[in-house]
Amino acid sequence: MSDIAALTTRIERLEHELAIQQDIHQIRRLQYTYGYFIDKSQYNEVVDLFAEDGEVWFLGGIYQRKAGVRRLYIERFQKNFTQGHNGPRYGWLLDHPQMQMVIDVAADRSAAQLRGRSMMQAGLHHTAEGQQRAWWEGGIYENSYVREDGVWKIKALRYYPFWHGSFAEGWAKTPIDFIPMARTLYPQDPLGPDKLMDPQPRLWPATDIVPFHYPHPVTGKPIVPDNSRAREGFRDHESRSR
Amino acid sequence: MSDIAALTTRIERLEHELAIQQDIHQIRRLQYTYGYFIDKSQYNEVVDLFAEDGEVWFLGGIYQRKAGVRRLYIERFQKNFTQGHNGPRYGWLLDHPQMQMVIDVAADRSAAQLRGRSMMQAGLHHTAEGQQRAWWEGGIYENSYVREDGVWKIKALRYYPFWHGSFAEGWAKTPIDFIPMARTLYPQDPLGPDKLMDPQPRLWPATDIVPFHYPHPVTGKPIVPDNSRAREGFRDHESRSR
Amino acid sequence: MSDIAALTTRIERLEHELAIQQDIHQIRRLQYTYGYFIDKSQYNEVVDLFAEDGEVWFLGGIYQRKAGVRRLYIERFQKNFTQGHNGPRYGWLLDHPQMQMVIDVAADRSAAQLRGRSMMQAGLHHTAEGQQRAWWEGGIYENSYVREDGVWKIKALRYYPFWHGSFAEGWAKTPIDFIPMARTLYPQDPLGPDKLMDPQPRLWPATDIVPFHYPHPVTGKPIVPDNSRAREGFRDHESRSR
Repeated sequence: MSDIAALTTRIERLEHELAIQQDIHQIRRLQYTYGYFIDKSQYNEVVDLFAEDGEVWFLGGIYQRKAGVRRLYIERFQKNFTQGHNGPRYGWLLDHPQMQMVIDVAADRSAAQLRGRSMMQAGLHHTAEGQQRAWWEGGIYENSYVREDGVWKIKALRYYPFWHGSFAEGWAKTPIDFIPMARTLYPQDPLGPDKLMDPQPRLWPATDIVPFHYPHPVTGKPIVPDNSRAREGFRDHESRSR
Repeated sequence: MSDIAALTTRIERLEHELAIQQDIHQIRRLQYTYGYFIDKSQYNEVVDLFAEDGEVWFLGGIYQRKAGVRRLYIERFQKNFTQGHNGPRYGWLLDHPQMQMVIDVAADRSAAQLRGRSMMQAGLHHTAEGQQRAWWEGGIYENSYVREDGVWKIKALRYYPFWHGSFAEGWAKTPIDFIPMARTLYPQDPLGPDKLMDPQPRLWPATDIVPFHYPHPVTGKPIVPDNSRAREGFRDHESRSR
Repeated sequence: MSDIAALTTRIERLEHELAIQQDIHQIRRLQYTYGYFIDKSQYNEVVDLFAEDGEVWFLGGIYQRKAGVRRLYIERFQKNFTQGHNGPRYGWLLDHPQMQMVIDVAADRSAAQLRGRSMMQAGLHHTAEGQQRAWWEGGIYENSYVREDGVWKIKALRYYPFWHGSFAEGWAKTPIDFIPMARTLYPQDPLGPDKLMDPQPRLWPATDIVPFHYPHPVTGKPIVPDNSRAREGFRDHESRSR
């Protein structure tokens, strides 16, 4: 191979690998901006972050394509949280700090995956109208992204809330099945998902590991969750409560 | 164009774009280090992070140039928080975790902008001297940076505290106008700012969106905050309290 | 120098500097994954993140080499936290969000250092078996990493817990010496460390600065902690309690 050909090969490789670092930067921005938008109930702006065939996994349900994404953010959240307004309302806190993002871009740069987390502060100020509540919440994301015409978009936002705790009582006292999982599909439930997650997740005090999209960083082996004891306290509790 | 000229062009572009990724890394370090310093009341070290014409936006006031930056950190915070000491004092917590940084470097690499956030834990241990208090606090940064002689410095640190909540009562019970905004300029107020922010911010339970320095990551359009309902509960409350 | 030689030099430099950005990405992944594993008591997977001569600094003790690392994670934590199980147990929360990572890779890419932090949520659900407790915790990491056969591993995980606070009472009321420091070495204490940290750290309400592995980002000078007032309240308190 000539000198020129050899240098060209090295330059091509550099261009590709630098582009992947730039992709990581753009995907981090995309997910972080999702966080900033959702903090402030900028739901139209959230919907615009998704690809046309994007989807959201939320509390046991899967909302599919732009129509499903809109149903969740605009018809459900915007109605419930901000009285139909696309923007923040007085006295409603919903902070979703976005943290600990592990991002992997496919070799052909068409797709990417991300594991991340949030630790929320949420609730209503006592001078604002509505049901009084204040809570902490921790959860994991395992998301997918797609690059279309050079622009990264959310392909699947999969949020796995893990624990909730009221501001007063915390995670030690969270009621079992504190927030109900989706049961009824759209359109029977006009705000329901298009599909149910399978298997159905279970909230804290269940402690299931959300599967990792990537292998162990040192051994390179798949990370195999052992969830055999993640739900074993429910039995007793549930039998006691019947 | 010769082969050599074509390869040189590609290499120049790689050098420029890699340098921007390195800049992002340095700016992240700069802001994170600000966080570590401010946690531990290392105020001299904080002041050294700023450019000569740097400034700080804080609670409605703007502290300008090194003299203003020093007034805020050394004369105000160091006196109030650590009894005049440049370093941590026994029993005083002021943790400022720095999170969710969206960083944009100008094409000519002379300047940069950052949106980020913090979620603070602060207060005094009951065995330490001083006014007993313990609080949580969430806020947004929209900062500017400048590169001088190859070194990135803070040009403008703009901190927008959003919510406060006492450890005991939380964000649901925060008193209206919990922390007063700056009203009087320096030197009339010897610890006052050089200018007032315009418009004046308002604390939680107001929920105004801090303007974004960057466009929507998918549509590329400006992000237009709709704050029309962000303060609408104040009216009632204020009239009730008069 | 010929054109080809000059371009080759620039390409070599690009390859080296891009590799360092990729290293930073891998080290961030390594530390973040440590966080995800430790959240869920995946202790075998944690141990596999370490180099053979790796070590952990924890509560005044140093656990050395794989044998020491295993003693801490498998024999101590796994026994205490998850009843001997390698994975999460029902109703046990131990979330360690990993944040604010400042990463520096050595010029020869054989080693790296990281400053980071965590802000934990931990405790037991009231329906789970065991001692009822729920706490917040903040701490700093100053870690080392090593690259072996192209794979980044943890060389030293140095965790400096800074403050603890129960969910009910918070950081203002933390008992002095809330968690005891290591005193007895292995094998006299079968779960003890191989060495003691020197100097011995002290927990909140002490406020000592953990030394920085890197210089001031603007001045380039060493960051010199002044901890002269970080423990000065203990004297009174300790004399009162005797």
